[in-house]
Amino acid sequence: MEGEPTLRLRIFNLNCWAIRYLSKRRQQRVRLIGDTLRQEGFDLVLLQEVWSEQDYSELKAKLAGSYPFSHYFRSGVIGSGLCVFSRFPILDTLLYQYSLNGYPYMLQHGDWFCGKSVGLVVMKISGIIFNVYVTHLHAEYCRDKDAYLPHRLVQAWELAQFIRHTSKAADVVLLGGDLNMHPEDVGIRLLRGWTGLQDAFAEAMRFEGCKNGCTLVPDNCFTDKSELLPFPLGIRIDYILYKAISSFTVKCEELKTTTGRAPGTDIPFSDHEAVMATLHIQRQGQPAGATLGTPEPALADVVAEARAEVGAGLRAARRQRYSSGRMAVLALLLLLLQAAAALATLAGLGAEQPFPKLSFCLLAFLALGVLVLATGLHLFRTMEVKMLHGTEDQMWMVLRALQERP
Amino acid sequence: MEGEPTLRLRIFNLNCWAIRYLSKRRQQRVRLIGDTLRQEGFDLVLLQEVWSEQDYSELKAKLAGSYPFSHYFRSGVIGSGLCVFSRFPILDTLLYQYSLNGYPYMLQHGDWFCGKSVGLVVMKISGIIFNVYVTHLHAEYCRDKDAYLPHRLVQAWELAQFIRHTSKAADVVLLGGDLNMHPEDVGIRLLRGWTGLQDAFAEAMRFEGCKNGCTLVPDNCFTDKSELLPFPLGIRIDYILYKAISSFTVKCEELKTTTGRAPGTDIPFSDHEAVMATLHIQRQGQPAGATLGTPEPALADVVAEARAEVGAGLRAARRQRYSSGRMAVLALLLLLLQAAAALATLAGLGAEQPFPKLSFCLLAFLALGVLVLATGLHLFRTMEVKMLHGTEDQMWMVLRALQERP
Repeated sequence: MEGEPTLRLRIFNLNCWAIRYLSKRRQQRVRLIGDTLRQEGFDLVLLQEVWSEQDYSELKAKLAGSYPFSHYFRSGVIGSGLCVFSRFPILDTLLYQYSLNGYPYMLQHGDWFCGKSVGLVVMKISGIIFNVYVTHLHAEYCRDKDAYLPHRLVQAWELAQFIRHTSKAADVVLLGGDLNMHPEDVGIRLLRGWTGLQDAFAEAMRFEGCKNGCTLVPDNCFTDKSELLPFPLGIRIDYILYKAISSFTVKCEELKTTTGRAPGTDIPFSDHEAVMATLHIQRQGQPAGATLGTPEPALADVVAEARAEVGAGLRAARRQRYSSGRMAVLALLLLLLQAAAALATLAGLGAEQPFPKLSFCLLAFLALGVLVLATGLHLFRTMEVKMLHGTEDQMWMVLRALQERP
Repeated sequence: MEGEPTLRLRIFNLNCWAIRYLSKRRQQRVRLIGDTLRQEGFDLVLLQEVWSEQDYSELKAKLAGSYPFSHYFRSGVIGSGLCVFSRFPILDTLLYQYSLNGYPYMLQHGDWFCGKSVGLVVMKISGIIFNVYVTHLHAEYCRDKDAYLPHRLVQAWELAQFIRHTSKAADVVLLGGDLNMHPEDVGIRLLRGWTGLQDAFAEAMRFEGCKNGCTLVPDNCFTDKSELLPFPLGIRIDYILYKAISSFTVKCEELKTTTGRAPGTDIPFSDHEAVMATLHIQRQGQPAGATLGTPEPALADVVAEARAEVGAGLRAARRQRYSSGRMAVLALLLLLLQAAAALATLAGLGAEQPFPKLSFCLLAFLALGVLVLATGLHLFRTMEVKMLHGTEDQMWMVLRALQERP
């Protein structure tokens, strides 16, 4: 039905890199982001890495006129960093915190403290129900030897499962976020294959911005140039994905990225480029059919590939759980030995204490410290093993179902 | 349409109390549970507190004939303890881990280590889509001064939100589990009010079992009699809840509980009684309408009451976060002071070290220990504050929407 009215939706997505005390020129950039959003008047704004609630409050106050509806998702120690601003009322929200998200002792990476999550906001625009998801997955610190790949794959899987299970009554699904994966990575293929989401960059009728739609580019003065050496054009890790579930079609009329600096200024919004999409949503005569969960021919291969990576992560986690357990047992044995020696000395069994008191005490404290740390690590690894194992199982179930289908 | 065929579904729910090394006569009871389930041939079995994967595997092997489909939900250090056995194929699963679940340092309670969660399995029986949820909420250790009430309320809220968001394509929703709340508690009223779930015990046409449907009764040889002193008949904390979403009606034909011992034996299945429901599901001529989210007249009051409790928890968590932060700062100051004293001695500023070396070292280790523990506690309390605040916010949003409705 060509005559049906079209809904035009302008979406803005940005990883804001707004870490208090650490991100360069944070306050200036947050002000700039707020000013631009107010001027441009998008319909929907999806932000990541707004770590400080004060930054969110300032944005909220500034944007109250043009985006009267907003939501900030709280989680973890620092916060999820995720928030949404909207021209249209937010009817409902839900937060799903990923079960794996790096390691608390990797302080220099800090992902664990963020409680990485996916946030869902439900909206009704012109009678169309939108499920809008915003997320930020675990960062990739070393592509060649990516220790976090299994965790990121678990996150991509949980994201896909969360979208599938929560979007069944939606007409249109939108996902924006920093997925920390290149377009050809197994996690993206898994997410897209298992949810049926389409990539706005690939589908856009018009594109304007960094070459290949990159969102981490050498032209941006805040990016780490050494990290981008293997990718002279930059990399694409920030996405807007979409799909229609019921009797609607979604088309991406235009996709834009910023190009190393905010429009009309000399500094960028962030170390990431913003992604801006203009979508057309139109009611179809007939239901679009089972877009949800339609298996692409190659889906089973993708799930198998992801499952192999998760399995490798599981084996590594099991080895590390064993090591930390062994370390805890050794420390406990040392402590017991020391206790026995101390008791023997007290009981007057030994003629004289063989060690100087200070070294003896220092050793005991060292052993106690190792025992506490190794036990904590062992518990953490046990959780990691449980979640990797659970995901591997789920993937296996899906794989079997896919292979059994004609 | 009276002529539509009726689906009759027999459901078994039990908190199995199967903690390795701790629960009395565990192996015997798990065998007994397995034997009974095999004999009785229920359609659907929802179990909690199956902490050991070995117990699950043994049950799975024993029940392979009568319940060919099953799922075990892994989470936390110990596991979620949740599993499902079914006569009908399980199409899909999803696990949602509650964001708050007690405190890791409350070792004697141990809830934190279990990663308490809600598990979802999706099934299609006779063309009817069932969303089946199984869960176990945080225990109540002291009813008069329930320190975990805010956490349990956050869990009840997250459970309700998870069910609402994931069940939109389901025809029938079933929830079984140990909710650790009495029927009149605010958490149960919140859960039922916000999801529209009905209580099988209250709706049952026939009931047989412990008086008032109690599931923790003094007649059970494993229950702690002192805990039940204020409740001579026992308490009801295990539930089967249900609702129809689309054009179906669900009726509870019969509800049964065990009565302090397993049928035909002298020992109980567990310290909890099993709950067994026989449901009738029938297609209606017309859609049942918006059962989902229908606000009961008193719903706003219930949400406000729950929000007040969460708010009280938030204030307490903030105070404790402050205390732990202050403790960490004091320990750090002491350490710095000691470091300065040690440096001064080394530099020959003081004539002689004023403390004996051993006491000096012991004090430093003590300060270090306090610093590490207080910092850990501070981080944990920060997460707690975030989640309580987030839930309070969500409840406020819902409250506002409920009050704005005509």
